[in-house]
Amino acid sequence: MFLHPPDPELARRVAAVVDRWGGTFEVLPAEEWRPTVKGFDGVVVHLTMYGLPLDRVLPRLTRARRILLVVGGAKVPPDLYRLAQYNMAVGHQPHSEVAALAVALERLLGVPGPLAIPGAKQHLLPRARGKRVVGDRGGR
Amino acid sequence: MFLHPPDPELARRVAAVVDRWGGTFEVLPAEEWRPTVKGFDGVVVHLTMYGLPLDRVLPRLTRARRILLVVGGAKVPPDLYRLAQYNMAVGHQPHSEVAALAVALERLLGVPGPLAIPGAKQHLLPRARGKRVVGDRGGR
Repeated sequence: MFLHPPDPELARRVAAVVDRWGGTFEVLPAEEWRPTVKGFDGVVVHLTMYGLPLDRVLPRLTRARRILLVVGGAKVPPDLYRLAQYNMAVGHQPHSEVAALAVALERLLGVPGPLAIPGAKQHLLPRARGKRVVGDRGGR
Repeated sequence: MFLHPPDPELARRVAAVVDRWGGTFEVLPAEEWRPTVKGFDGVVVHLTMYGLPLDRVLPRLTRARRILLVVGGAKVPPDLYRLAQYNMAVGHQPHSEVAALAVALERLLGVPGPLAIPGAKQHLLPRARGKRVVGDRGGR
């Protein structure tokens, strides 16, 4: 994830989760967002309620090798609408950007399964009730 | 939405969005969460990364007339795992509760279309670029 403005504390907290639970997720600082969007080697998809419906845009993304999903805050700079190849709406009323990102990722990749991720120090065993964690529990 | 602890300011802000964009969404205060869960006339589904995979639980919900999705904060009281009919995991690593709720709602209901909602003062016309809002723009 490219984060603008950068937030080193958030990046550190995410890195701690990855260290424990595995995966390759990383928060990279983006002092300027435009070079990241303009220089991206793939398809740039801006998530906005003003865009075209998800079900119209997703079929056009099936052959994309790399996709950059862009979410903005309350006030999105107007040029982002032009710089993105697609403006895609997960819903057409005001909604959480986190929610839009989650639904877009789920539609593109599906939900992650319960298998342990390579490099994980611990993982879950899904249960009908309660909690079950397997592996190194560190300082807990 | 039943919100515990209550947050009148959040309820007011959501009501203002509904007034403008339509819909029936409402934030209700829940001074105590247990009576809401215990007294619910329908299926209670607790969203937690420790639960059973989404794809295993969802087929059991297809005949449910009413569903209460429950999301907790950092520390969920242990009895919620027993009070819920299902503990359902959208993902099995730490993740946003908003993201879990969004994906669960999308799987249950699909994404909302661009049609105007009854009672809406304004709605969007989806566009490939830029913004298009139709209707009363109020004090803007």
